[in-house]
Amino acid sequence: MNHVQGVKATEPEGAARPCQFVIFGGTGDLALRKLIPALFSLYRESRLTPGTRLIAVSRKTLNNEAYRELLEERARIHVTASEFRPDDWEAFLRIAEHVELDASQPDQYTKLAAALEDDGKSQRVFYLATLPALYHEVCASLSNAGLVDSSTRLVLEKPLGSDLASAQRVNREVARVFDERQIFRIDHYLGKEPVQNLLALRFGNSIFEPLWRAAHVDYVEISVCETIGVEDRGGYYDRSGALRDMVQNHLLQLLCLTAMEPPVRFEENAVRNEKLKVLQALRPLEGRTVREKTVRGQYTASAVDGREVPAYYFEKGVSAESATETFVALKVEVDNWRWTGTPFYLRTGKRMSKRFSEIVVHFKPVAHRIFQDTGAPHISNRLVIQLQPDEGVELLLNTKIPGQGMSLHPAPLDLNLADAFRRRRWVAYERLLMDVLRGDSTLFVRADEIETAWSWIDPIEAGWEAHYAHPTLYKAGSMGPDRANELIERDGYQWHEALAADS
Amino acid sequence: MNHVQGVKATEPEGAARPCQFVIFGGTGDLALRKLIPALFSLYRESRLTPGTRLIAVSRKTLNNEAYRELLEERARIHVTASEFRPDDWEAFLRIAEHVELDASQPDQYTKLAAALEDDGKSQRVFYLATLPALYHEVCASLSNAGLVDSSTRLVLEKPLGSDLASAQRVNREVARVFDERQIFRIDHYLGKEPVQNLLALRFGNSIFEPLWRAAHVDYVEISVCETIGVEDRGGYYDRSGALRDMVQNHLLQLLCLTAMEPPVRFEENAVRNEKLKVLQALRPLEGRTVREKTVRGQYTASAVDGREVPAYYFEKGVSAESATETFVALKVEVDNWRWTGTPFYLRTGKRMSKRFSEIVVHFKPVAHRIFQDTGAPHISNRLVIQLQPDEGVELLLNTKIPGQGMSLHPAPLDLNLADAFRRRRWVAYERLLMDVLRGDSTLFVRADEIETAWSWIDPIEAGWEAHYAHPTLYKAGSMGPDRANELIERDGYQWHEALAADS
Repeated sequence: MNHVQGVKATEPEGAARPCQFVIFGGTGDLALRKLIPALFSLYRESRLTPGTRLIAVSRKTLNNEAYRELLEERARIHVTASEFRPDDWEAFLRIAEHVELDASQPDQYTKLAAALEDDGKSQRVFYLATLPALYHEVCASLSNAGLVDSSTRLVLEKPLGSDLASAQRVNREVARVFDERQIFRIDHYLGKEPVQNLLALRFGNSIFEPLWRAAHVDYVEISVCETIGVEDRGGYYDRSGALRDMVQNHLLQLLCLTAMEPPVRFEENAVRNEKLKVLQALRPLEGRTVREKTVRGQYTASAVDGREVPAYYFEKGVSAESATETFVALKVEVDNWRWTGTPFYLRTGKRMSKRFSEIVVHFKPVAHRIFQDTGAPHISNRLVIQLQPDEGVELLLNTKIPGQGMSLHPAPLDLNLADAFRRRRWVAYERLLMDVLRGDSTLFVRADEIETAWSWIDPIEAGWEAHYAHPTLYKAGSMGPDRANELIERDGYQWHEALAADS
Repeated sequence: MNHVQGVKATEPEGAARPCQFVIFGGTGDLALRKLIPALFSLYRESRLTPGTRLIAVSRKTLNNEAYRELLEERARIHVTASEFRPDDWEAFLRIAEHVELDASQPDQYTKLAAALEDDGKSQRVFYLATLPALYHEVCASLSNAGLVDSSTRLVLEKPLGSDLASAQRVNREVARVFDERQIFRIDHYLGKEPVQNLLALRFGNSIFEPLWRAAHVDYVEISVCETIGVEDRGGYYDRSGALRDMVQNHLLQLLCLTAMEPPVRFEENAVRNEKLKVLQALRPLEGRTVREKTVRGQYTASAVDGREVPAYYFEKGVSAESATETFVALKVEVDNWRWTGTPFYLRTGKRMSKRFSEIVVHFKPVAHRIFQDTGAPHISNRLVIQLQPDEGVELLLNTKIPGQGMSLHPAPLDLNLADAFRRRRWVAYERLLMDVLRGDSTLFVRADEIETAWSWIDPIEAGWEAHYAHPTLYKAGSMGPDRANELIERDGYQWHEALAADS
């Protein structure tokens, strides 16, 4: 936990060495939907060093041929049509192999060791897209099988713990085998292009940083709204809930990048030190304040897009008496010099009326209007970083309507400019997997960040248990409980979609 | 000169009354090229109150029919083809009349009085597009002929004096007949859409004003570069020169709008009070400092666009020993709290290599670069207000190149957004004539502004006479004397075209 003082532990080693890329959970949903298509894109663009192998590990009995058929059948459909070229795909399939292995059985790792012949030059990456409960056993077994050296890298998917104690336990166990610099805790929100463009705007230009503080920012809103329910994850979700499943990781990470001070350099520990400082500055939400500054919601049955959907507590794997929240909204205050006075409103939920994820920086209104009011909407400036469904960065300005007089009109300005580059967009996993191969962990989450986030989340959970045990119900297909609007309107603000509807 | 304390003298009267629009110099170049086409556009869009008449005054012997033929022949070609509709044009010609009159002969004004039958409801506007030497005689004669009442408006074209004393004389003489609120001193640069968009950006948004000061602006550049020579204006020009002909009015006005404090309201005296304060804050350039902070240039013969052009002193109407400057560059300092530390570089010239007019606000470089240098150009932010040849407002930002890593790329962002409105652009004169008809003088120049500008210009002329009598020669088709580059490079800066060529 002393990484704040740390300097960059190692130089990125580049992607020069071929890689043995091992995926635990190689037949799982994440692998088939995200990882394999991302690796294919990298392969197709010759970004994988020749000699790189993809070794999928699962308990399934599949030989290489059968596994490749599975990829053809399942992963293939997630490759963007415009990028699919049969020749490339055939060649890519030939680097994919499968090893049957029960990850909870240490003695089975010899099979993996046999598959990973030590050619003395390959870089090993272990991607754990498997049950987090297995992380520490996998690490120990890999080590015992002699598969870990100082250049080996480990990629961990969320959830990393369900509270501070469990997160510390995972970190501690993993740290027995891997140094922090070898560990890449992935949060795919950080791989999204608009999130990085936010950083480019903030720190690559002189004109945003002076505005990026309480004196000029009214409030910040971070919303991750989904229309889906818990799908087939009911069993897991019911033990987790929106706060642990989404806020602790994705929303807090987005908040960190939005709020952090300029790092000394754009590199691993410099950036993560600044993110950590934001987490450390979060005003605690605990005890009775949770009823004032948080909204806990759970969806009830309704029609979404004309289709009847069940209440949360009727979902598969969910307890009929469940008090798990499927929606949460928080008023978060960052107690430091930069942000005191600027609230951050965080919101995430399932079965909402619209699917979108965005960060909205709402700048203050003009101090004084000098132009005569023409009845036209006159909006405050805002910077909208859209992550879903489309990616984009947009600045809302008032400009003059051409012609007589001085009437203003709000005009959204596309700051994304990806078109200007005529390149295809990278999906988040491509970018992040490439960072793993290059050994650059700037956009990955450090152990102390995870733990500090949990130490802020735990009191909210405790506060809920004591003072807000039953989530407020909201209709599936709505924007969450009315209380979520009250939370922000009480301060004189509005959620972005309400503002946008006005202008 | 006590307008600073003044409040708005009268409400705009709107364009409700039909107008008797009288142009002195009605067969001159300005009338035919600019005023008549602008009036036609207003007519065509039904912005002129029905019953409005256009009365052209000149010494030429032309009946109405002959004058309309002149408009057909000369003014018609300046109407944008896409806007020309024969029916509209025919109808417009019918409101145009001609009165033969020698403006220097007071007894001839009865002819005008006869033409302007007093219908008791028309608003009279006298537009003096004639020799400034005649201004006071015209005003006196109009008054003597009983053609001026409290609702009558007077529009004056530059030049308004050639130094402080002569400007005061003109203002004093005109003021014998017209109140200041009746006088519209036109500077068509203020009618340009991007100039007004600059104001909309500055005062209609909260995010620019905090940046708009020395702490965040490195330097400001105002360039009005022409490729033409003195054309057939040699006689006038040789007695004037670039400083009096361009800097005293256009460039200083642009400087005022760029540098002024936020006015209390966007209306006449509120805006002009702020502009005046800028003029009053200009650090004097006098005595020997003129050799350090100004560049005086005169073009010599060369080839421009493959065509041989003569030296200035061989131009028609120009003295062979002329020491008149056809180019001037100035380093101007605005001594107030907002701008101390930010130099304003002004530049204008004839026979330059490229025709363009622009205001460029150069923001400071980023305080510190956190992204690794990728060899890509890394520019400072700048806001470019383009007046000529195209109109536009552009913000130069650094954004992230999509894909791996964090490489920045300069990207120009179009803030103009006129396309978003799908309206045709107004030319400056249309806008300003309409303002005259509406009685809104916000974008016109007040007597005290003119005089304060001259009181700053005069010492430069005196300094030149004493210490810089001979302009530095520059080749026609160049960007002026090398000294103009030295003027700005000495401070560590570059003119925009040099910067743009680098990036």
